[in-house]
Amino acid sequence: MTGAVQYAVDLRMPGMLVARALRSHLPHARVLSIDTTRAREVPGAVILTRDDLAGTRSRFGPVFKDQPVVAIDKVRFVGDLVAVVAAEDLDSADEAISLIEVEYEALPAVFDPREALLPSAPILHDPADFVDGSGTADTIQPGVEGFEGFPDGNLCCSAHFESGDTAKGFAGADRIFEDTYSCDPIQHAHLEPHAALAYWEGPGSLVIHCSTQDPWVVRSELAYIFKVEPSAVRVIVPSVGGGYGGKLYPRIEPVVAALARKARRPVQWVLTREEVFMTLTRHGASVRLKTGVTRDGRLIARQVEVVYDGGAYAEISPRVVVQNAPVAAGPYRIPHVSVDCHAVYTNKPPAGAFRGFGVPQIVWAYESQMDDMAHALGVDPVELRRKNLYQEGDAYLTGERLDGVGVEQCLSAVAAAIPPIARSGVREGQPRQRLVRGRGLACSIKSTMTPSNSVASVRLDPDGSLQVLASGVEIGQGYTTILAQVAADALGVSLERVRVLKPDTDVTPFDHGTKSSRLTFTVGEAVRRATIDIRGQLLDMAADKLEVARDDLVIEHDQIRVRGTNVVLGIPDAFKARFGLPVGNLYGDAVVQTTGGLAHGTYRGKDSAFWMWSAAAVEVEVDTQTGKWRLVRIASAVDVGRAINPVQCHLQNEGAATMGIGAALMEGLVHDGGQPLNSSFVSYPVPSMEDVPQDFQSVLVEAPHPDGPYGAKGVGESGLLAVAPAIGNALADALPGVRLRNLPMRPADVFAALSGAATQPGEAPR
Amino acid sequence: MTGAVQYAVDLRMPGMLVARALRSHLPHARVLSIDTTRAREVPGAVILTRDDLAGTRSRFGPVFKDQPVVAIDKVRFVGDLVAVVAAEDLDSADEAISLIEVEYEALPAVFDPREALLPSAPILHDPADFVDGSGTADTIQPGVEGFEGFPDGNLCCSAHFESGDTAKGFAGADRIFEDTYSCDPIQHAHLEPHAALAYWEGPGSLVIHCSTQDPWVVRSELAYIFKVEPSAVRVIVPSVGGGYGGKLYPRIEPVVAALARKARRPVQWVLTREEVFMTLTRHGASVRLKTGVTRDGRLIARQVEVVYDGGAYAEISPRVVVQNAPVAAGPYRIPHVSVDCHAVYTNKPPAGAFRGFGVPQIVWAYESQMDDMAHALGVDPVELRRKNLYQEGDAYLTGERLDGVGVEQCLSAVAAAIPPIARSGVREGQPRQRLVRGRGLACSIKSTMTPSNSVASVRLDPDGSLQVLASGVEIGQGYTTILAQVAADALGVSLERVRVLKPDTDVTPFDHGTKSSRLTFTVGEAVRRATIDIRGQLLDMAADKLEVARDDLVIEHDQIRVRGTNVVLGIPDAFKARFGLPVGNLYGDAVVQTTGGLAHGTYRGKDSAFWMWSAAAVEVEVDTQTGKWRLVRIASAVDVGRAINPVQCHLQNEGAATMGIGAALMEGLVHDGGQPLNSSFVSYPVPSMEDVPQDFQSVLVEAPHPDGPYGAKGVGESGLLAVAPAIGNALADALPGVRLRNLPMRPADVFAALSGAATQPGEAPR
Repeated sequence: MTGAVQYAVDLRMPGMLVARALRSHLPHARVLSIDTTRAREVPGAVILTRDDLAGTRSRFGPVFKDQPVVAIDKVRFVGDLVAVVAAEDLDSADEAISLIEVEYEALPAVFDPREALLPSAPILHDPADFVDGSGTADTIQPGVEGFEGFPDGNLCCSAHFESGDTAKGFAGADRIFEDTYSCDPIQHAHLEPHAALAYWEGPGSLVIHCSTQDPWVVRSELAYIFKVEPSAVRVIVPSVGGGYGGKLYPRIEPVVAALARKARRPVQWVLTREEVFMTLTRHGASVRLKTGVTRDGRLIARQVEVVYDGGAYAEISPRVVVQNAPVAAGPYRIPHVSVDCHAVYTNKPPAGAFRGFGVPQIVWAYESQMDDMAHALGVDPVELRRKNLYQEGDAYLTGERLDGVGVEQCLSAVAAAIPPIARSGVREGQPRQRLVRGRGLACSIKSTMTPSNSVASVRLDPDGSLQVLASGVEIGQGYTTILAQVAADALGVSLERVRVLKPDTDVTPFDHGTKSSRLTFTVGEAVRRATIDIRGQLLDMAADKLEVARDDLVIEHDQIRVRGTNVVLGIPDAFKARFGLPVGNLYGDAVVQTTGGLAHGTYRGKDSAFWMWSAAAVEVEVDTQTGKWRLVRIASAVDVGRAINPVQCHLQNEGAATMGIGAALMEGLVHDGGQPLNSSFVSYPVPSMEDVPQDFQSVLVEAPHPDGPYGAKGVGESGLLAVAPAIGNALADALPGVRLRNLPMRPADVFAALSGAATQPGEAPR
Repeated sequence: MTGAVQYAVDLRMPGMLVARALRSHLPHARVLSIDTTRAREVPGAVILTRDDLAGTRSRFGPVFKDQPVVAIDKVRFVGDLVAVVAAEDLDSADEAISLIEVEYEALPAVFDPREALLPSAPILHDPADFVDGSGTADTIQPGVEGFEGFPDGNLCCSAHFESGDTAKGFAGADRIFEDTYSCDPIQHAHLEPHAALAYWEGPGSLVIHCSTQDPWVVRSELAYIFKVEPSAVRVIVPSVGGGYGGKLYPRIEPVVAALARKARRPVQWVLTREEVFMTLTRHGASVRLKTGVTRDGRLIARQVEVVYDGGAYAEISPRVVVQNAPVAAGPYRIPHVSVDCHAVYTNKPPAGAFRGFGVPQIVWAYESQMDDMAHALGVDPVELRRKNLYQEGDAYLTGERLDGVGVEQCLSAVAAAIPPIARSGVREGQPRQRLVRGRGLACSIKSTMTPSNSVASVRLDPDGSLQVLASGVEIGQGYTTILAQVAADALGVSLERVRVLKPDTDVTPFDHGTKSSRLTFTVGEAVRRATIDIRGQLLDMAADKLEVARDDLVIEHDQIRVRGTNVVLGIPDAFKARFGLPVGNLYGDAVVQTTGGLAHGTYRGKDSAFWMWSAAAVEVEVDTQTGKWRLVRIASAVDVGRAINPVQCHLQNEGAATMGIGAALMEGLVHDGGQPLNSSFVSYPVPSMEDVPQDFQSVLVEAPHPDGPYGAKGVGESGLLAVAPAIGNALADALPGVRLRNLPMRPADVFAALSGAATQPGEAPR
């Protein structure tokens, strides 16, 4: 509000240059020549092209190293980086950009993932692009069971998961439903664009301040690119103005570092909004779903094929396919499951992590089909779900026991919050009213990145203040508040005594990244354990001074008290007793390591450190003459394990659900022959407060997890997952016979469906 | 060399203002009014005067809170701060300064400390100035035994030390010598002037980047002044361009912070060189020395009275008097000792810490007298010293056992390096040659600040790199190199793997300050212990992985090896075995707490964590027609305990000795009626390479100390202590009958002495 918070876009350094980029205007082309002769005449301009990548590994990526720092042989989408210019001011940089002459040889391009897999399709990547590819940034590496290894033509990556015997399952089913559902790619629309400021302190020592969710991964990737030790790279993260996954893994950091290396000056680059739209997207996807059920509504077998549109570079798609294969069948006990997940290269901007990590596209499919099945079977949609939902202590598909399963509570809560529309039994053949209402609901399951590690180092000062060193990123989700609460509670001091440092890889310890809703669970728990260690040291000091047993002491209100007495010792006095003066520090540290998942190289055993469960229900009102619809009310229930900060949990839930509304109602990137048509907030609206109903019920379910701090689980993504299918189900409820199978469901799509020209799955709206 | 190192003077921030000061032109005056009406009309000018101190404690100081942030009721020396202006540029600030109108009422002033103690002297401080005085920054607090407590008139502070019975001692002496020796105040002349950049992140949260040797003390003092918790103040220290004690304790930080608070903008203040001369000095001093000896040269009794010229504010004078009282009798076993140390307020710039901390002034006295006594007794000066020097394991005056006593080795080394001048026995009555030579030597003892505390937190990363968090300041002395060596050795990795962080009180742990030659001994030892803790954790991990006993493992060349085999495990692999991936960190921390000294509130028991011993010898050549003299050769021997980095030890020794040459030959602040006459490097020369002889022998003696890392002791100050008396003794040797008793010994003083008009002790040169 006051402008006091410094974001990466606000940083300034003496001698700092600013940057602009030259990007490809072709979706696929060979780069024949780049002539910078005239551009170099612009005073002060420093130009980075493929000719400046000597001494670097030139390509990066969290799993496959397929993304060049700047274009080398080819460009692969409209917006692919060709050259970057640093100059004293943006006008000079723009002038130099305009004087760079690039000769391209246009190549055939492909935009649809299924077309990209045809033998006739142009191939984006040469196999030689992958020879040095071994993941530096992520745990997914070729060779993990269930993961097919290196790309094959345009098939970037695949994962297969199986449990039971689907052939046998389908043979025993009374009814089989088979449909395809799809989602357009969408954009993260974080308020702060990508921004980074880099400088080299010497030829082998890089400092970069950047708006990232992933400082340690950025560090290891930059070390890989520039062939230096990881400790030679210092990544400092100021407050981040939103991320939603769009700032995971290196993004603009490699090119800014390369430009600063050439300029021998600090260089800052802040993307324009149009460039943000070209930088990363949420995967467009199509999901083919075949489900066998018994007459009484028990799910027997499910076969899932997910095709993600990965865009031009692999980015984190390999993890998306590997992580989601075991959850693609939904939160239901199904004896026979077979899942294939694929990500495919196309000549579009790369797709990567986005709140929900590829799960919302799948939930959209199975929860839409669930309502269709309920309708076909004549069963209440809530009852159909309830009959099949996982329960506490159930064995999951992977064989592991499920702890903390709050999904039925979530479902019941939203079902109660948004009751069915009361209407007469007969609607077929009746004249349709202009404004009709419908109610829909959906629920979901999601895993968290596993294994992962978080380290915390906590320092107690003589004045009773705690400094918390950890590398989670405050991106507006309230991370610093949670950590302060945990540390204050663990020691027994007031919240104001705790300061949580911002990430700085030279200073704050390792963390696997602000992703997968994991921070409270892992960093929070690490801080709790580290602080409990300090508490023990402090009590020992006090016990010595007061000559009592340590167990007789409690810490309350910033003081140490002998239990049941008025004898107190201030924290400064405890330090004075130990160190001669109120000086010195006490340190505690802890590593939280979640195990299982792909560390086993198999899908058997523990797949996820904790599970996210959620449900949403909505009531919609549709104008049957225009297709325009609005949300009348919404309820979103998330299982948080334990709400350490209920206000923040509600805000996370509401914010996530609102992003779900955007994806359902309005968001979708539109391309024409690879050219982006709506790369601005004028043509690409995101939900405003006007799109959110006043009746917005956020419900927190608490099914505690034994490994989380105080039982807490992550909540960053849960609220998003079930919203779109709940809305789709509500539209289907309002409009009998209408089933939209592609996201977003813009009014024009509803209108078309009402007119009998139903939108086809996977077909992009015009 | 490349300009890549950023000092505080180099820092820039967006929106930053720069500052200039209005200082008193009178040595002592009441401030009747300050009118800023016209100054405020300068666009952008923010003016800080006494009217802006509301909400602060308004006065500070490491022991007594007698120094106002800006002048309140009075000014007390020429250069005392009256107002400070922040503005967009220095020209605007200067313009505003020129428009501030101050009305003074001149008061009588006093410049000589002994005169300042006369009943007729004007009194600088009102007793009310001390009512809130309790040390926040230092361990010295009123009430410690041997320390007289609050100031009494102009007598700022006194300390008395006694051992044996001097009356009895003198009664038993064969000869008694009594003389007075003096030193002019001098300036630190650090290359980088004082500089600080402060901003407030909110009303209760201050960040200050400053060129200080004392981040934690600056933190606690700023918290005291602004009435916030210490943890609300963040002190960040970039590389410091020299300090020599001149940047200990708060200096310009309080006023920069107050100005930034008023401006609500970042404010940077960099002093001009002239202002540096007005900011802090080394105490001028006069030392009255009475020594009783036996006929055969055993020292029986010594009475010492030291009067330090403290200048206008107490600063750290209380510690100077308290710490030096027990060492004022020199490195000699003397049964009967009585010492009185005083610091006195005068209307001159405040005096404070300076390499040697008040000891060089005392060594100047006792080592000059030692040669006079040797001459009078007809004993060789080396033999006289040898007969009386402390030996390993001796009991010190305080009763403690002395460990690591290398003083005789130092003396012997320099005596051998610079042999006596070969000359015929008879010189009296001979015609004096134009160029004559003499040889002199001296030795010394110094204690280190005790008690003190240093904390280190060390982090091992999976790539085998170590991050060392500690709050010592790199001021050019090589601190970071020493810490890197200690950490690398303790773990068994190469030096390049270690990074030592710069101090940042939010990040790096407590340290008592870069002072008193203590960093290697305390921070070095803390880093060693913390790293050994990490080593144990790493070996445990490796032992688990390799299935061997931990004791069978060694760490060599960045690898873990099974002793006597070729079986090795890389550090990344050890992390992978423990954390599933090469991720995570190992942490170690340690507190080194030196005990004894004033923590006991008494001079009995351990007085110093370690002792500094040194000796110097020189050969001089004097032009008897002009008094001009030059050093022909010099040898300086310091007892380093153990030379962790011999090159750096030699550089410290040579640098310190060179400062000793400056104080002996040319340095001395000259005032006339309180007006400084030589506040620039034109009129105040410091030694250049031309003043240093080519034949400069640095000798490292290693008398290991049981508590230091690898036996090391501090060496930052030792080389300075004995140089001036060695030179004085050489001049006396060259010029029979000439004994200069005031520093510096400029050629004009030598000439005057040769002409029979010997410079009187304490008399300032014209």
